[in-house]
Amino acid sequence: MRKIIIDCDPGHDDAFAIMTASAHRDKLDTLAVTTVGGNQVLDKVTANAQKILSYIKEDMPLAVGQATPLIKPIHTGEDAHGESGMDGPNFHEYNYKISSTNAVKYMHDLISASEEKVTIVAIGPLTNIALLLRTFPEVKDKIEEICLMGGGVDRGNRTPTAEFNIYVDPEAAKIVFNSGVEIVMAGLDVTEAAMMMDDEIELLKNKGKASRLTWELLQFYSKASKRFGFEGSALHDLCTIVYLLRPDLFKGVKYHVDIETYGELTRGMTVGDKRPVPDKTPNTLVLTEVQRVEFIKFFVESLEILDERLKQ
Amino acid sequence: MRKIIIDCDPGHDDAFAIMTASAHRDKLDTLAVTTVGGNQVLDKVTANAQKILSYIKEDMPLAVGQATPLIKPIHTGEDAHGESGMDGPNFHEYNYKISSTNAVKYMHDLISASEEKVTIVAIGPLTNIALLLRTFPEVKDKIEEICLMGGGVDRGNRTPTAEFNIYVDPEAAKIVFNSGVEIVMAGLDVTEAAMMMDDEIELLKNKGKASRLTWELLQFYSKASKRFGFEGSALHDLCTIVYLLRPDLFKGVKYHVDIETYGELTRGMTVGDKRPVPDKTPNTLVLTEVQRVEFIKFFVESLEILDERLKQ
Amino acid sequence: MRKIIIDCDPGHDDAFAIMTASAHRDKLDTLAVTTVGGNQVLDKVTANAQKILSYIKEDMPLAVGQATPLIKPIHTGEDAHGESGMDGPNFHEYNYKISSTNAVKYMHDLISASEEKVTIVAIGPLTNIALLLRTFPEVKDKIEEICLMGGGVDRGNRTPTAEFNIYVDPEAAKIVFNSGVEIVMAGLDVTEAAMMMDDEIELLKNKGKASRLTWELLQFYSKASKRFGFEGSALHDLCTIVYLLRPDLFKGVKYHVDIETYGELTRGMTVGDKRPVPDKTPNTLVLTEVQRVEFIKFFVESLEILDERLKQ
Amino acid sequence: MRKIIIDCDPGHDDAFAIMTASAHRDKLDTLAVTTVGGNQVLDKVTANAQKILSYIKEDMPLAVGQATPLIKPIHTGEDAHGESGMDGPNFHEYNYKISSTNAVKYMHDLISASEEKVTIVAIGPLTNIALLLRTFPEVKDKIEEICLMGGGVDRGNRTPTAEFNIYVDPEAAKIVFNSGVEIVMAGLDVTEAAMMMDDEIELLKNKGKASRLTWELLQFYSKASKRFGFEGSALHDLCTIVYLLRPDLFKGVKYHVDIETYGELTRGMTVGDKRPVPDKTPNTLVLTEVQRVEFIKFFVESLEILDERLKQ
Repeated sequence: MRKIIIDCDPGHDDAFAIMTASAHRDKLDTLAVTTVGGNQVLDKVTANAQKILSYIKEDMPLAVGQATPLIKPIHTGEDAHGESGMDGPNFHEYNYKISSTNAVKYMHDLISASEEKVTIVAIGPLTNIALLLRTFPEVKDKIEEICLMGGGVDRGNRTPTAEFNIYVDPEAAKIVFNSGVEIVMAGLDVTEAAMMMDDEIELLKNKGKASRLTWELLQFYSKASKRFGFEGSALHDLCTIVYLLRPDLFKGVKYHVDIETYGELTRGMTVGDKRPVPDKTPNTLVLTEVQRVEFIKFFVESLEILDERLKQ
Repeated sequence: MRKIIIDCDPGHDDAFAIMTASAHRDKLDTLAVTTVGGNQVLDKVTANAQKILSYIKEDMPLAVGQATPLIKPIHTGEDAHGESGMDGPNFHEYNYKISSTNAVKYMHDLISASEEKVTIVAIGPLTNIALLLRTFPEVKDKIEEICLMGGGVDRGNRTPTAEFNIYVDPEAAKIVFNSGVEIVMAGLDVTEAAMMMDDEIELLKNKGKASRLTWELLQFYSKASKRFGFEGSALHDLCTIVYLLRPDLFKGVKYHVDIETYGELTRGMTVGDKRPVPDKTPNTLVLTEVQRVEFIKFFVESLEILDERLKQ
Repeated sequence: MRKIIIDCDPGHDDAFAIMTASAHRDKLDTLAVTTVGGNQVLDKVTANAQKILSYIKEDMPLAVGQATPLIKPIHTGEDAHGESGMDGPNFHEYNYKISSTNAVKYMHDLISASEEKVTIVAIGPLTNIALLLRTFPEVKDKIEEICLMGGGVDRGNRTPTAEFNIYVDPEAAKIVFNSGVEIVMAGLDVTEAAMMMDDEIELLKNKGKASRLTWELLQFYSKASKRFGFEGSALHDLCTIVYLLRPDLFKGVKYHVDIETYGELTRGMTVGDKRPVPDKTPNTLVLTEVQRVEFIKFFVESLEILDERLKQ
Repeated sequence: MRKIIIDCDPGHDDAFAIMTASAHRDKLDTLAVTTVGGNQVLDKVTANAQKILSYIKEDMPLAVGQATPLIKPIHTGEDAHGESGMDGPNFHEYNYKISSTNAVKYMHDLISASEEKVTIVAIGPLTNIALLLRTFPEVKDKIEEICLMGGGVDRGNRTPTAEFNIYVDPEAAKIVFNSGVEIVMAGLDVTEAAMMMDDEIELLKNKGKASRLTWELLQFYSKASKRFGFEGSALHDLCTIVYLLRPDLFKGVKYHVDIETYGELTRGMTVGDKRPVPDKTPNTLVLTEVQRVEFIKFFVESLEILDERLKQ
């Protein structure tokens, strides 16, 4: 069973990733969920993690991580995720234990204690992961791979060239991509193709508790997607968890990827060397295609597993 | 008849552009060929312009422009064009009149004197054009459009993100793209598809003088292309002239394009805002597709026109 | 007699420089006053030049130059110079001929036509001068030196590291400092010492027309200086003209100076290599000291010469 | 008694700082010496720390820190410190225990365990300190101040604007200066005045063991200083320890200091806002003057204390 740590900033699509990981807990052993300032400030995304874990009756350990990027002030994503960072549903009450207030150290301790290698699923800015790799470099040998949502080798969303998660903390991303650890990058190249369409969303409405919550989250989220000019709702963060469970649904190419941290127009860009003869050895598996229909089907079925569990 | 000025740094593919313009002088009135430091230093590219114009018995006025980029030292392209900037053929003797040693002023005078609007075909670094637009801003109203070879909205060649012409003088490019003048950009997006294959090249060998010269130039040029990992030889600069004569062979999209002048990994990148909802109004027609077979056919026929003329 | 061109953006202290040059027209032959967007937008600074030249009954040719910096949008100096760019006095009417609307070309023509070398006094952003040197590089041999107000090798005013004139157009400044032309730099190192104190200002009030105008200008200007935390009013631009007439009042050191055009905190900084063993050969005489009392005395006497002339 | 941690990259002047701290162990309780890649690579500077601690028969805990800067490759200082990082003396044998291979965690544990606040003396690149402050932000409340050698508000040494320690890891420095912790900066402004002259050095030759070692170290070090154009040998790092023991020998000014991490000419510059009306609240006590003669006298006497101790 693959051991994972989910480093996140919920976030609607973070919630989908967490729920899908939970649905498949027979295949993914989530050692911890850790939070990082990103889609919203740290307090809010941590509260959102508590809400979602509490709602799906999980008991994954939850640790609170870094509030702000390494070097620059935080830039949050209200436009996509709203005031709370996960606008849409009303979570009337929640009560979820915080296992640690230092996610970096907590990750270190978990990875050190694990006999098997651990996969890091990083779906927020990479602040926690960068500090983990730099402060405790010995963990590198115990990390299977870092499967992250971020970047895009031929597009951006926050700016013409930069995707939100990388844009928020480019210096952290630069540390991670240059760390030598294996990286699978689910960037906009693939995540903008991982779209759920309105008619598919509507089918979730009258099913069980997890599906219903997803439907509620998507009511808000799909409006933002439309405002950005998309036909459907790109389930960005979800791609990482689905990739771990169903890699057959994806195609990818190995590129050397580095991060632009300077740049007036390009700060936070994931620069992939796509030339036939690149300058450097590829360090990243960049996902470029996903079988959309199958991807959505897998997500819907995952929610049904949760629906069933939550009936009990 | 469309009036044009060809601002160039020959360069193999510059030579193809000049020859094709010459072949169609019934449709394109070339007011001047102007040179700029780029593929090689100014003296060499000027000599190359003289060689090619002399060889094809043209009498287009030739003016010498800027030797170095606006701000940074020049970076030449020996890897693609060799020591002379146009390696391959032996031009035994040439003798071609220089009409002016100040191409910027010369362009200004030509454009001012022209009753009709003038199209600028810019196929080297944009140093001359930037100085023209800044020192003599009144010419903007007399410029039909700037049709340039440079950049790429989803790739680079000199670096992972920057194409050679823009990379050499990003500040000049920034001035040009922000000038308000209409721009058609034949960047790597389209020019890397404008390939001539070895078997097509071979057919040029035993035809007339212009075809033969082209064959000789392509002997050197195609080797460099292969070293860069390409199957055939991308006839970059030629795309501009062919676009003016046969726009039906191309497809393009209007994007807002700006130039990254900072950036550690991205200096000289043409940043196109490809998002569904861009931040700014499109300012550039970015060519994205070319009908390759038709394009090569048109080039070959253009050379045949010249072959015929040179027999006389 | 030294031939000069005054390139300026009046501006209170530009006005002082123009008046002082006029007072000493037996020693300085001002071939032209040229304007550039800076302290205020081009239309306003040109109008201010007209006002001042009209008021002092000069007939120096006036040419209109560049409205905006080479690469970036203009940043004006209302905080120091007010809404008009030269707030304070009321100039009831003025009428002053514009000799050319293209200052760059006009400078080129004047310098080319001059038998002797010409000194450029540059007291605004260096946009015009950069375009002159790049578009018409042949003038370099005819330029005696460029005596400019700008920069500071150990301080800034617009930012902690950048002085206003250089900050507005760093790319132009970089072209000028790297042009090979001799440069005398009257930067903040010396101009912040070239202060006129309130009691000295007050003595101008009841003298002749030029002194009175200066007093009126200083009523506004000295308030801004105090807001910036200075005891008196630094007569920045005036240092250049006084240096040409009375170099004995100044001390300076030769440094290699280059311009930072990138930098998040340092864009527009004049980087002087002050180390005992510098990397590069000095290219700039950086003025570092001025005999303040003598400097002010010379200014006051210059105004008296004008006062006398204007009586007639 | 003030508790300190010395974070260093020995380094000749690091050695002087360590010896002086040791001499005054009645006043300074050195909880640990920690190492960081800088003057030389980590293995070498750690070995140098072992050599010096072993030579002076100390038992301060020694912990090994970060090998490379946060974001960019390391740049070492062979020109000043030689191949070993501490060229000059022959240390025939040494044997000194490493207490931890993770200096960041070790510092955290020491500071957490200390009842009193701890002062950090940082005399290498700030990589360890930045990671400490970011990974364990709770230690900030337990840090009395960070007294560091680095930067210079009006000069550089590695470049015209950047001092070596800051230049090596500007991003780390930016984290530290923006951390909110009190900072005393002994930069080049003061350390280049903290010079030991050749005749003063010569007096160390025939004294005890510590003086003799210092003399040997200065034989190499003073040659480098001369090559950089200085009259004597600037004892940079030593200023921090002497400041803690004898603050009366120094003068300083509070400035807001931030770090330029971009910049083509200014990367690694400590940008101090020296304007009369700065933009931001001062965050750093910048030392600007030292009583040189008294400073050297204090150092010589400190060595004598060690000489005495080492006799036993």
